[in-house]
Amino acid sequence: MRHFVEELDYLRSRLLEMSALVEDSVYRSVLSLTERDPQQSQKVLQNEAEINHMEIEIDDLATRLLALQQPMATDLRFLTSAIKINNDLERMGDLAVNIVERALALSNEPLMKPTIDIPAMASRVQSMIRKSLDAFVKKDPELARNVLVSDDAVDALRDSIYEELIGYMERDPKTVRQGINLMFVARNLERLADHATNIAEDVLFLVEGVDVRHHAEARE
Amino acid sequence: MRHFVEELDYLRSRLLEMSALVEDSVYRSVLSLTERDPQQSQKVLQNEAEINHMEIEIDDLATRLLALQQPMATDLRFLTSAIKINNDLERMGDLAVNIVERALALSNEPLMKPTIDIPAMASRVQSMIRKSLDAFVKKDPELARNVLVSDDAVDALRDSIYEELIGYMERDPKTVRQGINLMFVARNLERLADHATNIAEDVLFLVEGVDVRHHAEARE
Repeated sequence: MRHFVEELDYLRSRLLEMSALVEDSVYRSVLSLTERDPQQSQKVLQNEAEINHMEIEIDDLATRLLALQQPMATDLRFLTSAIKINNDLERMGDLAVNIVERALALSNEPLMKPTIDIPAMASRVQSMIRKSLDAFVKKDPELARNVLVSDDAVDALRDSIYEELIGYMERDPKTVRQGINLMFVARNLERLADHATNIAEDVLFLVEGVDVRHHAEARE
Repeated sequence: MRHFVEELDYLRSRLLEMSALVEDSVYRSVLSLTERDPQQSQKVLQNEAEINHMEIEIDDLATRLLALQQPMATDLRFLTSAIKINNDLERMGDLAVNIVERALALSNEPLMKPTIDIPAMASRVQSMIRKSLDAFVKKDPELARNVLVSDDAVDALRDSIYEELIGYMERDPKTVRQGINLMFVARNLERLADHATNIAEDVLFLVEGVDVRHHAEARE
């Protein structure tokens, strides 16, 4: 067995590889909707299979390190945060697949106007994901706090997309099915933002030892 | 500090108290929709605050036991499963709140027919939740497998509710807003079933040491 410090470095690097795959999936899932490119969808599905394998590997490794060592405060927090971030990343891979499924359901019809706002929401969410993972790598609490603040803006964007879509559906029943698919895309983007928020909260716990979980919820 | 075995028992009993609160919340959230009883909604919100506190307490306790002890295989699996089940239960409390929010949005208008199917779906989901937690308490792999099988039936129910609601919305645009609220109720019930499935998978890992996570997903 490698030295404990080497094992921790390896765990960190695997988490970063996994997060790069997740970022790639989210980026491509939105392209699969806006560009209607089936190759993007295919790649998201491939990524998901790999993300699932990595989740199990990282979970096993973190659990083994918890068990075989008696990590002190900082390493202990790193390992429990790694288990949680791993879980968040795996779910983010699933959410990207959900978006692809909605994109495929929509691929045979012209899209209505609100897709203009969905890419705007997607780009904010992608920025939150990138910042939350940067905050983890750099142990940067300011970057993590920045993610917590962005979550409210994403929720507001989702609400305005919902309202706009409901307006379309009420005016023209032929748009109901498409409107619902687009609502679920917005919903999945919002949940991606929630997971980025979870990761930012884990970073704050890791760096400052402060548990901000339900303070953040109370803020909403 | 209490003896390790006593700490484990205490952790188990707190998890069971938390799961009882979650079951109560899910039950009341559906009543808040079907019976339009604001007291039920109120209780779900109170439960959520308590569930959030318990999540942090249980997480801290499990992490401390992992750190201060060097648990052997079975206890280690119990502690890592407890951390995951704790996380699932907390999210289930949030999902019950989501259902209550949809119920409140619908509370001023007569409900259309598909609510007949939503209680049917809800009762299956409640049964899955109960079985997954019973499987945890009794360390019963058969009960856990039973939960995994039920998940497909719940997904099928959700699909038929979606189709029925889309039909209503397409025929009568005045039902769009209500239809969407009811779709989100069905969506939240489906996610509750997913969390019960996660718990059942954790039980199988705990009892048999078999990781069934992504096999279960491949089955879908």
